[in-house]
Amino acid sequence: MADEALFQFLHSEIIQYVNSAETGESENGRCVSKLENMGFRVGQGLIERFTKDTPRFKDELDVMKFICKDFWTSVFKKQIDNLRTNHQGIYVLQDNKFRLLTQLSAGKQYLEHAPKFLAFTCGLVRGALSNLGVKSIVTAEVSVMPACKFQVMIQKI
Amino acid sequence: MADEALFQFLHSEIIQYVNSAETGESENGRCVSKLENMGFRVGQGLIERFTKDTPRFKDELDVMKFICKDFWTSVFKKQIDNLRTNHQGIYVLQDNKFRLLTQLSAGKQYLEHAPKFLAFTCGLVRGALSNLGVKSIVTAEVSVMPACKFQVMIQKI
Repeated sequence: MADEALFQFLHSEIIQYVNSAETGESENGRCVSKLENMGFRVGQGLIERFTKDTPRFKDELDVMKFICKDFWTSVFKKQIDNLRTNHQGIYVLQDNKFRLLTQLSAGKQYLEHAPKFLAFTCGLVRGALSNLGVKSIVTAEVSVMPACKFQVMIQKI
Repeated sequence: MADEALFQFLHSEIIQYVNSAETGESENGRCVSKLENMGFRVGQGLIERFTKDTPRFKDELDVMKFICKDFWTSVFKKQIDNLRTNHQGIYVLQDNKFRLLTQLSAGKQYLEHAPKFLAFTCGLVRGALSNLGVKSIVTAEVSVMPACKFQVMIQKI
């Protein structure tokens, strides 16, 4: 419980700080991209530790399953609720109660703030995948809080 | 293990980001004070959760012991190694292997960077104490890494 709280509070502080530090015309975009970059580096670091003792992954799907189960549980204390793929390099990870959105009120008026609360995690996933040799673009969308979907588009090299 | 790593990586990202965002004449001072403020708010939040089910504290020393044992263990996975006081409102908390300094090389040339790595924690302690009704000033000093001492000066109201 302690650790979760620490992560959540730190995450909020970061959003608040980055949001206030990035002023200028395209501030919102820059804020989101800074947060995404932070997440990327943290994801890279974390996956190295997490996979230290795991056997080699069979394929891309195997990697995605690891992200949805082990990685997600370590960071967010629950698994991804649903993983779908078109078998052509697109994966959709659905979390029905995404931890970093649970502090936000569920009202529709807050939906516009959701990207700031998802950017770090998009980067986290992209960074983790990147260090497992999978290049990707990760986006997120929310329709009803606190449920949210992360879309991973694999970039074939 | 996962949680520790997450906290450490996030903490490093914050230092790096705040350090790069606060440019100007007195940049180093502002960086440290921003980090301290973040720590303060996180400390306030955490202590509320941690003390939800604990009995009321007897006195100031009782509060300090809680910080050194329970609070420190929750956040840094170990207790403070030594607590001293002059019984006149000054407490010195010594951590012989402070987690947030263990990533830094122990060379003397890095000592000047230590304040950035301690500011968040100073705020954390000040915030926690503040929400327990103890107003304080918290400073930190390092003589040999990764050992470090936090000095808490209670502000009598």
